[in-house]
Amino acid sequence: MTCPLGARTRRYEGRSGTTVQRALHLHPPHLNSQNAAMKFCSECGNKVVQRVPPGDHLPRFVCDACGTIHYQNPKIVVGCVPEHEGRILLCKRAIEPRLGFWTVPAGFMENGETLQQGAARECHEEAMARVEIGSLLSLVTVIGAHQVHAFFRARLLEPTYGPGPESLEVKLVTPEEIPWKDIAFQSTVFTLQRYLEDRAAGRENHYFATLERGTPRPLAS
Amino acid sequence: MTCPLGARTRRYEGRSGTTVQRALHLHPPHLNSQNAAMKFCSECGNKVVQRVPPGDHLPRFVCDACGTIHYQNPKIVVGCVPEHEGRILLCKRAIEPRLGFWTVPAGFMENGETLQQGAARECHEEAMARVEIGSLLSLVTVIGAHQVHAFFRARLLEPTYGPGPESLEVKLVTPEEIPWKDIAFQSTVFTLQRYLEDRAAGRENHYFATLERGTPRPLAS
Repeated sequence: MTCPLGARTRRYEGRSGTTVQRALHLHPPHLNSQNAAMKFCSECGNKVVQRVPPGDHLPRFVCDACGTIHYQNPKIVVGCVPEHEGRILLCKRAIEPRLGFWTVPAGFMENGETLQQGAARECHEEAMARVEIGSLLSLVTVIGAHQVHAFFRARLLEPTYGPGPESLEVKLVTPEEIPWKDIAFQSTVFTLQRYLEDRAAGRENHYFATLERGTPRPLAS
Repeated sequence: MTCPLGARTRRYEGRSGTTVQRALHLHPPHLNSQNAAMKFCSECGNKVVQRVPPGDHLPRFVCDACGTIHYQNPKIVVGCVPEHEGRILLCKRAIEPRLGFWTVPAGFMENGETLQQGAARECHEEAMARVEIGSLLSLVTVIGAHQVHAFFRARLLEPTYGPGPESLEVKLVTPEEIPWKDIAFQSTVFTLQRYLEDRAAGRENHYFATLERGTPRPLAS
């Protein structure tokens, strides 16, 4: 499951006030979403309603048939900035959202892995590159997408890379070659900027950001 | 939604091989779980099966009726170590799991808030205390619980606190008074230890840990 950053934002915009659970990737939207505008109870199959449960303060999807309360919470996206001899590994996206735009390897964290393992896995899946994950670089909350993005510094273990199934192209670029106007997601722009500033200053800090949405501008829907 | 840390672990143990989506709190288990052993499709209400979808590498809950793939990912728990004049604010849990054990204020991050806002909200809900959130203290992956815990340093804005609905007791303790054997969760132990070490050394680093489970020992189920 690689690099569906921003997908939830896109669908979120089309359904104001609803929550979109899961990004879409590789499959058509109607075949691949755990749509947070939940319709049926996953425990018993009956219809759910949205309501603030007793003792709670936020509306949840509730099943009146079996009494189950279905909570929805932010998802974690893990990624890294892989470096090799001063250059940075970027991927050109082969899938929507932001097909044809550039990003660093990143995607949804899976159950059963650490943040660092997830970041390394995504790099291997999207850029066919093996990395050593380094220090924490950024933690970005994307409010509208219900996501938290965690990026790490990373080092290529060998200069071997190439496009995985969700990438059109993968290349090492110098800081001057970064296609800033064609970066897919705002969290990537923020992260790359902090990375380069820190590298120039010889430090490895971590940075927080809050974004309302994941993409630089509204997507046509 | 406050401090259900570890609840998913508890249920997870009772259902080997399944995934538990959501902790239980305040309500009986059968009335309050988004059980990750999903049975019915939340899009169309038909039964789901578990299978590796085409192009994927992990089993997911899939609906053959409407084609929806339901992803399940780690949840984020946010918390803080609130300090006031050298003492630390602890809460005695009024709910399972780990009822009667001590913890720092923490709970599941909600959609629409940042990590820091969530940590401050949980402190207000559980300890009726207002805090200023400080630097990142720890990021703990709890593998078996499908959770990532993010803890921050914090400072009480005024020495006002008390038990919220999910706490039996809230108190400020000196480092010597911390009831180490009665701390509810391993991530809290790790976090408090690093906090005190850093404070003694006059630094504010952040720390990573990976835990297989959230609680110090198996819970009777």
